[in-house]
Amino acid sequence: MSQDAVPARGRRDAAVTVTDEVVSSFAETRDPRLREVLSSLVHHLHAFAEEVQLSEREWHQAVEFLTRVGHTTTDDRQEFILLSDVLGLSMLTIGLNQPEGGGVTEATVFGPFFVPGSPRIPLGGDVAGDPPGEPCWLEGTVRDEEGRPVAGARVEVWQADDEGLYDVQREGAPTSGRGHLFTDEQGGYRFWTVRPSPYPIPDDGPVGDLLRATGRSPMRPAHVHFMISADGYRTLVTHVFAAGDPHMATDAVFGVRSSLITEFAERAPGPAPDGSAMEAPWYEASFDFVLARDA
Amino acid sequence: MSQDAVPARGRRDAAVTVTDEVVSSFAETRDPRLREVLSSLVHHLHAFAEEVQLSEREWHQAVEFLTRVGHTTTDDRQEFILLSDVLGLSMLTIGLNQPEGGGVTEATVFGPFFVPGSPRIPLGGDVAGDPPGEPCWLEGTVRDEEGRPVAGARVEVWQADDEGLYDVQREGAPTSGRGHLFTDEQGGYRFWTVRPSPYPIPDDGPVGDLLRATGRSPMRPAHVHFMISADGYRTLVTHVFAAGDPHMATDAVFGVRSSLITEFAERAPGPAPDGSAMEAPWYEASFDFVLARDA
Ligand SMILES: [Fe+2]
Ligand SMILES: [Fe+2]
Repeated sequence: MSQDAVPARGRRDAAVTVTDEVVSSFAETRDPRLREVLSSLVHHLHAFAEEVQLSEREWHQAVEFLTRVGHTTTDDRQEFILLSDVLGLSMLTIGLNQPEGGGVTEATVFGPFFVPGSPRIPLGGDVAGDPPGEPCWLEGTVRDEEGRPVAGARVEVWQADDEGLYDVQREGAPTSGRGHLFTDEQGGYRFWTVRPSPYPIPDDGPVGDLLRATGRSPMRPAHVHFMISADGYRTLVTHVFAAGDPHMATDAVFGVRSSLITEFAERAPGPAPDGSAMEAPWYEASFDFVLARDA
Repeated sequence: MSQDAVPARGRRDAAVTVTDEVVSSFAETRDPRLREVLSSLVHHLHAFAEEVQLSEREWHQAVEFLTRVGHTTTDDRQEFILLSDVLGLSMLTIGLNQPEGGGVTEATVFGPFFVPGSPRIPLGGDVAGDPPGEPCWLEGTVRDEEGRPVAGARVEVWQADDEGLYDVQREGAPTSGRGHLFTDEQGGYRFWTVRPSPYPIPDDGPVGDLLRATGRSPMRPAHVHFMISADGYRTLVTHVFAAGDPHMATDAVFGVRSSLITEFAERAPGPAPDGSAMEAPWYEASFDFVLARDA
């Protein structure tokens, strides 16, 4: 083959397509997994462009859109994750990596509002801090797949307040609506918080524009985030959703799993489970988690 | 359906996949083409993740990579276009939009080095400016598919110099290696320039890292960029490649088409086609373009 004998390209030279040529260009990739992932990516990316007969104007629009996503992403805001979330890629990936076996609690999206170094609270303590909201008692257990309690599991909790905001969304606000505690010998956890509210994902960037162009809601149904970790177990990142939320079927990030929905029941004034005398109506919910053993 | 009856999701609820759910979420999209493109994109993106069983770590690496691509992109540097180029998506899209009929000159990538407002030069003038390089005479015709000359076509030319650099890559350098001229009544064009050199695409960013990880060369074979426009014709963006370039089969952006290769022949000192008396060796190349009628 002379040095001018280039591989045939494009539809005029149908024998070798540009797709074949790109995939061949990965032949010298040292990491076989990288080669596998890139080859599959190129096949599917090209199949997409061919299926829709992508125009050059549309290609330019895609470049501009991704450029805006890149420029919206900062240390405090991850617009690419938001894009992955609203395209369902995050939940698909989580589902692909869900441990085998039906007994383990399902995972869901991590979301952008976790902050490391949350305050430790005692069992039965209050993670709410001082945000607006109706008091809510949340309790349950952490167990393994055989039903044995997982004692000393770290239960990390974070959530939006009554106005649908996380503390980090209120400039200069003190830490609230987040904390961590450890399960007791029976695998139990319990704490006070506020009843969670539905809220919109950040929609003032290109991902918000995409939602508007597709007539989609930016709202997420009310939920409390949990991250549960214990030695020897796979860390579980999930939510507990409040049953009855009107946004349940249209979660902007496709994060709802029916197994994660529980009732946040309204209670009349009176004694609470920890012996507090409640003078106003309050809420109560419980959820039991099952962890998978570390693979 | 109660408000808690959410669509089933993920592999545990195989009846409705997250992919189906995302595609359904586009049902209210006003622009039917946007709906079509997004639906196809989601199908192929999800099929990719499933095919490779994308891990959560790989998903994070992809987010970090795209974030770097976004942050490398500035007013002067388009790393997303470079990424599209090295994944062959740019050339695939150009191929999909190539006018029907085999007679029209093939298009290729636009590249990042075009600058609007290039100097006008007379027929037979010099676009080289003052860069290093061996003198090169380039000439040819612009015709329509029936072989009729296209008079007054604007022929825009830009290229790298002897050191593989475009003028815009030399800080503070004057305009060189770019210009525009108009075809004569016979559709002819001709100008002096320098012999083009192979050069690497900008590889100090994440796309360069991708090339290194896959053992690919960042080099492009020597070429001269052309953009040819005329009333009533589709604007042609293409290159003319110098035959014999060692990088011809491994162009980093898959931009070579064999129909675009021509010989840049070395000539001994003596008279040039415009009557100049050349005192040193010089080069000569010719290429005839065929434009498609505007659709
Ligand atoms: Fe959340
Ligand atoms: Fe170039």
